[in-house]
Amino acid sequence: MPPEPDHPSANLERLAPDELHEAWPALSDEERLQGFALLTPEEAEEFVARLPSRDAAKLMVVLPVAARQRWLRLLPPDDVADIVQALDEEQREGTLALLDDAARDEVRALLVYAEDVAGGLMNPRYARLREDMTAGEAIAYLRAQKQRTAEMIYYGYVVDSGQRLRGVVSFRELVTARPDTPLRELMTTELVTVPDTMDQEAVSHIFARHDLICIPVVDAEGRMKGIVTADDIVDVVKEEATEDMQKVGGLEALDAPYLDVSLWHLIRKRAGWLAALFIGESMTATAIAFFEDQIAQAVVLALFIPLIISSGGNSGSQAATLVIRAMALGEVRLRDWWRVIRREVASGVALGSVLGSIGLVRVLLWEWLHRALKGTMLYGEHYALVGLTVALSVLGCVLWGTLAGSMLPFLLRRLRFDPASASAPFVATLVDVTGVVIYFSVATLVLRGTLL
Amino acid sequence: MPPEPDHPSANLERLAPDELHEAWPALSDEERLQGFALLTPEEAEEFVARLPSRDAAKLMVVLPVAARQRWLRLLPPDDVADIVQALDEEQREGTLALLDDAARDEVRALLVYAEDVAGGLMNPRYARLREDMTAGEAIAYLRAQKQRTAEMIYYGYVVDSGQRLRGVVSFRELVTARPDTPLRELMTTELVTVPDTMDQEAVSHIFARHDLICIPVVDAEGRMKGIVTADDIVDVVKEEATEDMQKVGGLEALDAPYLDVSLWHLIRKRAGWLAALFIGESMTATAIAFFEDQIAQAVVLALFIPLIISSGGNSGSQAATLVIRAMALGEVRLRDWWRVIRREVASGVALGSVLGSIGLVRVLLWEWLHRALKGTMLYGEHYALVGLTVALSVLGCVLWGTLAGSMLPFLLRRLRFDPASASAPFVATLVDVTGVVIYFSVATLVLRGTLL
Repeated sequence: MPPEPDHPSANLERLAPDELHEAWPALSDEERLQGFALLTPEEAEEFVARLPSRDAAKLMVVLPVAARQRWLRLLPPDDVADIVQALDEEQREGTLALLDDAARDEVRALLVYAEDVAGGLMNPRYARLREDMTAGEAIAYLRAQKQRTAEMIYYGYVVDSGQRLRGVVSFRELVTARPDTPLRELMTTELVTVPDTMDQEAVSHIFARHDLICIPVVDAEGRMKGIVTADDIVDVVKEEATEDMQKVGGLEALDAPYLDVSLWHLIRKRAGWLAALFIGESMTATAIAFFEDQIAQAVVLALFIPLIISSGGNSGSQAATLVIRAMALGEVRLRDWWRVIRREVASGVALGSVLGSIGLVRVLLWEWLHRALKGTMLYGEHYALVGLTVALSVLGCVLWGTLAGSMLPFLLRRLRFDPASASAPFVATLVDVTGVVIYFSVATLVLRGTLL
Repeated sequence: MPPEPDHPSANLERLAPDELHEAWPALSDEERLQGFALLTPEEAEEFVARLPSRDAAKLMVVLPVAARQRWLRLLPPDDVADIVQALDEEQREGTLALLDDAARDEVRALLVYAEDVAGGLMNPRYARLREDMTAGEAIAYLRAQKQRTAEMIYYGYVVDSGQRLRGVVSFRELVTARPDTPLRELMTTELVTVPDTMDQEAVSHIFARHDLICIPVVDAEGRMKGIVTADDIVDVVKEEATEDMQKVGGLEALDAPYLDVSLWHLIRKRAGWLAALFIGESMTATAIAFFEDQIAQAVVLALFIPLIISSGGNSGSQAATLVIRAMALGEVRLRDWWRVIRREVASGVALGSVLGSIGLVRVLLWEWLHRALKGTMLYGEHYALVGLTVALSVLGCVLWGTLAGSMLPFLLRRLRFDPASASAPFVATLVDVTGVVIYFSVATLVLRGTLL
């Protein structure tokens, strides 16, 4: 396609929907509009439904008003609510005004909920049935309702006159039952439901535990408000894992794909923790200054500072990661702290002994090699005592790191903070400062009368 | 319930299924058997279906043979296959022998697949239809098939005589269509399918991208083999995120809940990486030894070693975590490396400048406070130059850490390793060693003629 003079960047060829999805994050607003305009109507519908709500919102804003209105009326209300929520404050009312009255009411009802609770996830359109219907009547009724109910629905929900949920019947059961069977006999009444205010992470645990495809959402009075489907939960689980991982990695959660956030946003999300960690770590300078005379007497001690304190930081990162993830999955709860402490003390002693031994061998071996190859001493005449100091300090730091790393998430959760804030760098910093003190205390004990 | 003499640990009261699920990990084999025996048959069925396959396998092994056989015949073949896979080698054949011939064939067909590919996830029982059926005939056919097809199926799959998948029709469409509509007209023929050998993580991306509830699995010849449902994918996504997070935390993936793995297994999964990191970090001792004379001349330099190198480690952990997660989510691909480098250089310079300034202020402030309060010098007469050395070294380390942390995952993926192996502690170790060299090189330049 030759470039057209009145579209300066109009050099985009027609892309298939999948290709356009792939390329989307890298395209300019103009290229997006153009690529979108080149889709067939069916492709475009599927395309918009698959677009993340932030991207869909951006697209809606740049679309001509008529097209925007057509799209908003086509999309299910939970998608529209997501799009409205992703818009800037001042664009929201104008966008809501494009909807017909019924849809606007549905969308407004959804906007009441925070994005990350069951009510914010749910689709308010579901197949509503009454218990005195028969299977045959239910099928006839649903056939007539075809246009109103959303595409992806697999159950009929039996509600009473107060919209309270009484039972659930799958389309499969409707299809395979004798047509004159009353729903009362057909429906399942042992229901798994979630309250509309439940946090999305808790909802995901319920999906995982019950292996369900779809869960009804009810309000505090037991009234049916909508349904959450497993495909929404796949997104939730990814989102929550990403947040946790970013927190564990020592930064604030980005809330958007890496390449989509602005550089300024990216730096801001990282600078806060980095600065806090840096100020915390500067305590090591104070701690080492306290032992400055020892270093002046035995400069060899300075060599092993990073090695020793990092052994504590690394084992602490491991322990914190394990406990944070196990908490997020519901495998470890607050009351398990004593079981965790026992395991971590045992692990810390074992791991510390392994690393301490490696440290001892490292010091001895380097000294011998140095003497054999160069004929001079590397760590001085008391090198064996230096090796012992390293070994014992490593043991102490690893044990302390393991304990601090595993207990900090418990402490944070107990204080109602997010355990994932016990990030690997946070634990490492905490352990570094203590590690300096452990190291020089051990050195003072072991080397008194020889080097110190 | 009073303790019975012939059940020494028979002090477990009847627990509701949910309570038993909660308590399960903490119970002994005997208590599990007992708690399970106290469930009603309906509760027990629901309970087993919800149990993770590892736990279900353990329960099956301790059940009496008759009960074991009853359970294995009741469960869908994909659950049985998972249980058999979780058993010890020598128990597998005996367990397969308990199945009827048809089920055994189904289970054996599933056992061919690795656990973590589409074929290992799928349920081989699905509703099979032919395209010359009408909606009414399909409903009648499915009604007759009721017993054979699994509980949670929402689509009918239209296959030809060679079992090749031609189209999909939802139960909802069957229910709402006129009964004489041929499936040929009703079915969707634009199908999203996955090959049976596709990795489960790739399958989860397809679910997330298409917002699907259920995807058919086909072999290399296009023959329909089974279906994967979104609830299985919720588990997959959790599992993959856990693996990645544990790798990023600097240990091998545990493959089981924290409290379920043996202490020995726990230690083994952590010791390998810790030892490798420790040996890597011992390079810092070698690097510092190289600058031993400088430290002897200016002991003040030793104070800032951990502060400076950890600033690189922390910013490297952040960058690595961001890139690893973005890669796992498919947001960043190999070919995006240049975009990532540009963002990370900018971030590194910005973050390094912030931290460097804090470092400079920290040195100046402490010196002034010390002089004002104690009347002595803390960092010596050239404290301003020491502050400058710290600031420039921090800038260098943060920039280098950010670059190394963001590029290492690309390098690993390029070499076909798992990018998540670029763990936070690994990056920190790499950056620590380089950080020592950066620090002392800057010190040599800035302090030449004064302290050095």
